[in-house]
Amino acid sequence: MKLNCDLGESFGAWTMGQDEQVMPYIDMANIACGFHASDPSIMTRTVSLALSHGVQIGAHPSYQDLAGFGRRSIHHTADEIRGLLWYQTGALEGICRAQGTTVEYVKPHGALNNDMMRSPDILTAVMEGVAAYRSGLPLMIPATLDAEHHRELAKRVGLPLIFEAFADRAYDDQGLLVSRIETGAVHDDPQVIVEQALSLANRGGIRSVSGKWLALPAQSLCVHGDNGHALAATRAIRSALSGQVNG
Amino acid sequence: MKLNCDLGESFGAWTMGQDEQVMPYIDMANIACGFHASDPSIMTRTVSLALSHGVQIGAHPSYQDLAGFGRRSIHHTADEIRGLLWYQTGALEGICRAQGTTVEYVKPHGALNNDMMRSPDILTAVMEGVAAYRSGLPLMIPATLDAEHHRELAKRVGLPLIFEAFADRAYDDQGLLVSRIETGAVHDDPQVIVEQALSLANRGGIRSVSGKWLALPAQSLCVHGDNGHALAATRAIRSALSGQVNG
Amino acid sequence: MKLNCDLGESFGAWTMGQDEQVMPYIDMANIACGFHASDPSIMTRTVSLALSHGVQIGAHPSYQDLAGFGRRSIHHTADEIRGLLWYQTGALEGICRAQGTTVEYVKPHGALNNDMMRSPDILTAVMEGVAAYRSGLPLMIPATLDAEHHRELAKRVGLPLIFEAFADRAYDDQGLLVSRIETGAVHDDPQVIVEQALSLANRGGIRSVSGKWLALPAQSLCVHGDNGHALAATRAIRSALSGQVNG
Amino acid sequence: MKLNCDLGESFGAWTMGQDEQVMPYIDMANIACGFHASDPSIMTRTVSLALSHGVQIGAHPSYQDLAGFGRRSIHHTADEIRGLLWYQTGALEGICRAQGTTVEYVKPHGALNNDMMRSPDILTAVMEGVAAYRSGLPLMIPATLDAEHHRELAKRVGLPLIFEAFADRAYDDQGLLVSRIETGAVHDDPQVIVEQALSLANRGGIRSVSGKWLALPAQSLCVHGDNGHALAATRAIRSALSGQVNG
Repeated sequence: MKLNCDLGESFGAWTMGQDEQVMPYIDMANIACGFHASDPSIMTRTVSLALSHGVQIGAHPSYQDLAGFGRRSIHHTADEIRGLLWYQTGALEGICRAQGTTVEYVKPHGALNNDMMRSPDILTAVMEGVAAYRSGLPLMIPATLDAEHHRELAKRVGLPLIFEAFADRAYDDQGLLVSRIETGAVHDDPQVIVEQALSLANRGGIRSVSGKWLALPAQSLCVHGDNGHALAATRAIRSALSGQVNG
Repeated sequence: MKLNCDLGESFGAWTMGQDEQVMPYIDMANIACGFHASDPSIMTRTVSLALSHGVQIGAHPSYQDLAGFGRRSIHHTADEIRGLLWYQTGALEGICRAQGTTVEYVKPHGALNNDMMRSPDILTAVMEGVAAYRSGLPLMIPATLDAEHHRELAKRVGLPLIFEAFADRAYDDQGLLVSRIETGAVHDDPQVIVEQALSLANRGGIRSVSGKWLALPAQSLCVHGDNGHALAATRAIRSALSGQVNG
Repeated sequence: MKLNCDLGESFGAWTMGQDEQVMPYIDMANIACGFHASDPSIMTRTVSLALSHGVQIGAHPSYQDLAGFGRRSIHHTADEIRGLLWYQTGALEGICRAQGTTVEYVKPHGALNNDMMRSPDILTAVMEGVAAYRSGLPLMIPATLDAEHHRELAKRVGLPLIFEAFADRAYDDQGLLVSRIETGAVHDDPQVIVEQALSLANRGGIRSVSGKWLALPAQSLCVHGDNGHALAATRAIRSALSGQVNG
Repeated sequence: MKLNCDLGESFGAWTMGQDEQVMPYIDMANIACGFHASDPSIMTRTVSLALSHGVQIGAHPSYQDLAGFGRRSIHHTADEIRGLLWYQTGALEGICRAQGTTVEYVKPHGALNNDMMRSPDILTAVMEGVAAYRSGLPLMIPATLDAEHHRELAKRVGLPLIFEAFADRAYDDQGLLVSRIETGAVHDDPQVIVEQALSLANRGGIRSVSGKWLALPAQSLCVHGDNGHALAATRAIRSALSGQVNG
């Protein structure tokens, strides 16, 4: 069970996140590509930081929306979505090349991520885009009860998938994240977070808010590093997983 | 003697240039990478158009300045310049990958091009950046009386150079373009343009405005396709060079 | 019946529209404010051009989306929408002040215009925003069968409305524009366009595509100046209306 | 002696500065206008915060350069500079109008501020721009040994000036700020800062780094609020000045 984290989300004179603090505890860094955050200099430093910790580098492309941090849906054609992915993944890979490394996976950011999980057309465009970029490059998507269906869709275009889940978020009976607007959507108790991480790692699923068992075949947990609380949870998850045989 | 042209300089809803008209007459397309013009969709279409005409694809990176079309100097550190080149070249290459092709050279745009020819620090940063991106990837720079010195600088970082010259611009005694502010800076007469192209191709140089011989080792001529006049000149140059043994 | 036209939609090095050709034929210029098109220099020139033709100046604010020309919906809170309107209207008025004139109305652009006609919340935010900017400043909105309802909503915040309609677009039975995707959505025949303009001016309405009478209380017609065809239609409308007593 | 501070420099999801902490201690807020930082929502909140503390609102316009925070020179014509000032000052005033207030002065930001103090052409463009925006609106510029000359230039266009100085920066013998690259450029010792503030307030000048007396007719001191250290210095200056008859 690998830990992934959104990183490199500063922009110009503005700082976001505690990348240096969280990098030692994760396996996979989802690096912003300049459309919702970051710029070439920040991307260069983030790639360098990931390399120094032996962390895998993933492209974290988004809609072009610095003002909205990529969190707002913007309508695109399938052609435009593929273009967005190629541009941003290529840009990050250009920066990786200069440091002798490559992009190892792609995880869409924010509204693009949400939209692809709601719209089969957008998901298809994303899958085709990543598959066309480089054969064998995996796409990271949320693990849901539709994981098997998603695996079949990906297989059609020869695309490997990496399923991710959240240790600090409640899931509803449909296997979807409870909206942040709802109370109890985000777990605060480190013990609850660690238990959810262990359940995902060892039992292949978790209980929903109503107690229903959800089989979520997650290969990676999305953790956070933007504040001290999140960092503590990340360290606790890492520590708990390290005590596991398959950690 | 190959013909290169700046292309793909539309942006969103705005059109610039007559890319479809000029593409059949050129050998090398300098494709804008989104910082002074273009966007992922326009880049995708421009790469596709170049491929359909067997035209080589070059990255045409610039300072990040859509409002100023990359024509205004913006101070950058050497690290930032390398980052700009990696990001934009990688972005274009991402779009090329999806169409089974690659970036074959890099030609800086506008103020970045001017600045690298004036500042040894910027030229070094550009050379190091392109060399670090991919071994053997050539940098296209203007042919000047310093060409031999530029070749030595490039050799230090293992960088191939492609020298370009202009058939439609007057050169001063220092081998530099006469500023567009001066009268006579731009040749209008197609016969003068064709003769300058042939002189560069066959005799390895031209006469300056004062009549001084300038040895300019150009391997490529920069032509234009943004209006009917420029298109006619490009066709005339292509036609004249085609009658040549080494055309 | 006044003619209004979207103008000042160039951006940096890119030109759009034939502002100088169309300005003599219109009464009201909807001037882009930098969020979907234009920049301070283009706004300055457009205001100057409008002034020289005695044309009223309207702010044409939009979502912040140069890449999409303001044609794509982007979710905003009511606070954000009011802020967008104040910022852009103020920016245009800043440029007007320096030329001794003022903004005389506000007409939202593109997706923002569409969204306010679909969402009561967005329409309320737009109405409140314009009313709070300056008492008595009118908002221009499409004339629909809901015009009376819109007038009541506006009255609550003390906002004058200007209703606009289109002479070159077909309307459906609900009094809405037929989508451009449909055939027959846009009138090409100058005679049809002129007749629709005259019907709106003299009879206070038009027939829908199915022949149903639509009472559309338009005080202004939106015309176009972005190509020769549109210019010819605009001149024909102007000429036909000038022959009218109330033209 | 009034205290002014650059504020409202967050952008979208990124936070900068401790506006709420510093606002109670200042008299004049230089509010970013969206070109180097801020957006309409942040501007709305910053204006509201200033109003709630009875702090005067100044426009803080800059070159259009979010990526560089307005700290990089970008060449502009005089027309363009005037346009930048009108657009940004108007935008902030649009937001002020909706809250029943107005912009009370203009202070250029970053590279634009530096450039106007070095280039007479740019200073003239700035002075003409502010004067044309609204008669009587003051421009805030650094107090230097050229203050009298600047006053004369401003008088020609009927422009009031507000001279500002720094309590926490060393000045050289020419009355200019010692570059931040030099050691001793920035005062850390609160006592030194307070003494410099009192000298500017009570004696109309300070000693340069070499001990030369500099007559600097400052009417306002620029203070900072972006970290705890800066906040403490601001409170100390406020406290020291409050004990003064003319504080």
